[in-house]
Formats: sequence, C-alpha cells, structure tokens
Amino acid sequence: MNKNIPNITKPCVILVDPTQDGNIGSAARAMANFSLVDLRLVRPKETWNTYFCRQMASGANHILKGVKVFESIEESIADLQRVYATSARRRNMIKPMLSAGQAGKEIASLGAKDIKVGFLFGTEKSGLTNEEITLSDAVVYIPLSSSHASLNLAQAVLLLAYEWYQFTLKFPQQGRFLRKGKATFASKEDFEGYISHLEKELDLANFWRVQEKKPEMLAGLRNIFQRCDPTKQEVRTLRGVISALVYHRWRDVIDPGTRKIRDK
Amino acid sequence: MNKNIPNITKPCVILVDPTQDGNIGSAARAMANFSLVDLRLVRPKETWNTYFCRQMASGANHILKGVKVFESIEESIADLQRVYATSARRRNMIKPMLSAGQAGKEIASLGAKDIKVGFLFGTEKSGLTNEEITLSDAVVYIPLSSSHASLNLAQAVLLLAYEWYQFTLKFPQQGRFLRKGKATFASKEDFEGYISHLEKELDLANFWRVQEKKPEMLAGLRNIFQRCDPTKQEVRTLRGVISALVYHRWRDVIDPGTRKIRDK
Repeated sequence: MNKNIPNITKPCVILVDPTQDGNIGSAARAMANFSLVDLRLVRPKETWNTYFCRQMASGANHILKGVKVFESIEESIADLQRVYATSARRRNMIKPMLSAGQAGKEIASLGAKDIKVGFLFGTEKSGLTNEEITLSDAVVYIPLSSSHASLNLAQAVLLLAYEWYQFTLKFPQQGRFLRKGKATFASKEDFEGYISHLEKELDLANFWRVQEKKPEMLAGLRNIFQRCDPTKQEVRTLRGVISALVYHRWRDVIDPGTRKIRDK
Repeated sequence: MNKNIPNITKPCVILVDPTQDGNIGSAARAMANFSLVDLRLVRPKETWNTYFCRQMASGANHILKGVKVFESIEESIADLQRVYATSARRRNMIKPMLSAGQAGKEIASLGAKDIKVGFLFGTEKSGLTNEEITLSDAVVYIPLSSSHASLNLAQAVLLLAYEWYQFTLKFPQQGRFLRKGKATFASKEDFEGYISHLEKELDLANFWRVQEKKPEMLAGLRNIFQRCDPTKQEVRTLRGVISALVYHRWRDVIDPGTRKIRDK
C-alpha cells in the first residue's frame, strides 16, 4: 500500500481491443505513476506481452504480471459496481457526462466507500463504440483541441489516473503571487539584466569572498529577487539602488554622472 | 486560432537538454492536443528532428517546424515574463510551489492579461538542477506514487498542457448520481442479469418488431436503466416487475409458481 494515499479502493483500467503492445506497456507505466494496479485487457492480441511492451512499462512489471484477459467487456466488468467510459469526443447519448476532473473526484469518493470502479478505454483508432458505451454508467469526456483531437491511449489512461490521484491526496495549497494591479511584469531579460548588474558589482566588491561559494550565494540571491516578482518599473528601481549604493554613496569622491573620481 | 478557446496568450514549452528524439515528438503531440504551439529546445542533440520524432508527433508537424533552438536557458526565456519550472519531486528551496492544477489556473489567467509564460522541463534522466530552477518564478510539482515516481517527459508536458487547457474552457458541469444512503450498489453482473432477463422476455414478446431495430432499442433501454443507478435490492425488485408483468398478470391462466398454463 502506497504511503502517500489513504486506504481506499482503487479503480481498475480496462483496455478494449488494444492493438499496440507499446500502448499496453505505457498504460501500465502511467498507472504505476499514480499507484493503480489492476489492468484488464479485452481481446488483446495473443502476443501483447512483448519485449517492447515491457520496455514501455519502464519498471511497472508488477502490473503487467497481474493483467487479466477477457473475451468480452461484460466479463471484464462483472465484479465492478461502476463503470466510466472514456471518450475524446462528445456522444449523442442520454448519459451522465463528466470531465476527467469530476470523474476523478467522484471515483476517489466512491473508493472511500469501498465501491469498485473501472475506467473503460476503447481501441486506439476509434475509441469505444456507442454500443460499448451503453455498458457504462457515465462517460468521461476529455476536452481536446478540435484541430488535433486524437489522444494516445496511454495518455488518456495517464490523465484519468492523474485526476483520480489528485483527489486522493491532500496537496498543500501554497501561497501565490502578489497582486500588481495593472503594472507590467518585468521580462526575463529585464530581470537578468538586473541580476548581471548586481553580480558584476558584487564581483568588483569581492562580495563572495571564497570563489567556490559564489554559485550557491548567487542562486540564493536570485531566489530572493524572484520572490519579489518585480514589475518593469521595480527592476529599474532595483538597478537604481545598486547604482546608488555603488556611486551615490561616494558622491563627494565620485561623480555619479561620469562615474569618475572627482578632481580635487 | 482554435475556436474552442478564447483569444489568450498561450504558454510555451521549453525542454532543457532533451536526449530522446521520440520524447520531443511526443511532447509536440501532447501540446497539439491542447492547442499549444510554441516549443523551444535548449541544447538538443543535433539530430533531434528524426523520422521517429516526427512519427511520435503524429501530425503535430507544424509544432516541430516552428521549434526554436537555444544554447542556454537564459536565452530561451528572455522574452517571457513568467517561468514555471516543473519537478516530479519536492525541492528544498524557498520558492512558490504549485500543483499542476494551480499552475494551469494561474497561467490561463495570466494569458488573459497577455502575459507571456513558459513551462521549463529538465532532462529526461534527472530533471532540472536546483540551479536551473532558480531561473524560474515558481515550481510546479506533480505528485506521483512514491513507489513509481518517474514520469516520462512527454507525459509531464501532457499533464501541464492538459491542466492549462481545462482553465481556458467552460466545461459544462453535469448532474451527478442520485444519493443512495448506505445501500449497496448493484454489481455489473446483477445489472446484466436484469438486462438479459428483460431482453429474453422482450424477445418472447416480439417487442422489437423489426429485428434490425433491436440493437438500438436495447441500447436505449439499457441507457434508461443505467440512469436509474439501481441498488442490489432495486435490481431484484426490477426483475420482480418483469416476472409480475409476464406471469402474474395472467395468474388466472398461468401458475406463477410452475410458470405453466393451468389445467382448466
């Protein structure tokens, strides 16, 4: 049992008529990434468990070893209490339709009640038929760009496993950016200009003392200023600060305009 | 411009030291799935644009053609205003850290303000170094199962592109399951038993009239009962209804016990 997530019943993944052994391996890897274990195949090729399949599984061999093979979808889902069909296109059907996120949330909460759930994925080329979808309780729809709406099978498994996993975790919500109103954020070029300016001046100031320490110290400084999240104007101000410290501090000795030592 | 999503500035994807041409192709495909176009490579192999790369891109050749190659991360992000570093593990750094979902939401909203954003992905084997991460404004963390915490590069691109895309859409929120209290939901076996029972009786009743219409009519019925979302007990009740209609309706003529026509 994975220590990351509570002891809930996990959904299984059912691939219907998978034609490419590499996809089966990749799907297993994606499942392992999100702690799923139960992979079922309906009418795979006899030779699905190839070297390429295991290579794509990239260490998720425990999942391949546990694969159950079925002759029909009906047999593959017989022990389940909920089946979610997946589709990359909208279907003209009177069925509850959910986003992947909604499905993930729902299935995580069903799992907490020990309800056995399966995700049904259709064959690579065409997905599930409408008739196959009628075997399910709901359709999970993954919205895709209309100009490139073909999602690889293992990618679809990954997205649903990912969404489910998010709802099994209590991911700490972190604080976010400071508000800046309508000010323009500095570009990276602006920001790097500032960091280089600072670094150059600190070099001249022998700020790092031990040269080996410089990368770490500079990274530390950089992180500090990144957290400032400066606007364009603020970067100008920060650079002004450097100049002020370097030159204006000594205005009696150095001319801030010419940056030369004043004639006595 | 994709008709699915509003006219917002889209994030770019930056792959640092990518070593596998197949991953570059797969990343391009994942980007295309979610309407992203701007792919940048930092120090790729000279021969990255191979046949295998284009094969994995699966039609996303417009992205490969537009790839920009850079010698350093700094150059690759010079025109950007926000950079999000990605990491499959937590970093011991004082940096804002976000989940992929939080990042997707934030970046979609920055895009609506025409702020240019990039996702930074490290090399396949080890991800971004801490020094590379300091170039970013925030770290996006993808929580993974601790026992299988290696995510393929293109899969990571997919997940972040997917999350961003979700926040650019107004996906219709659909109604969900009826509440059932503590009742046990029927298994698929129970449910199929009911559907077969119904189908058999409807066959005998010549319900379908035209045999060619049967599959569609049966699918329609199935969808109706699926939406009922029955408990185990409710399935028993439904089967009782069939029996009642078939036999008890005719109790004067047929013996409901033996299901035989009564002797006069």
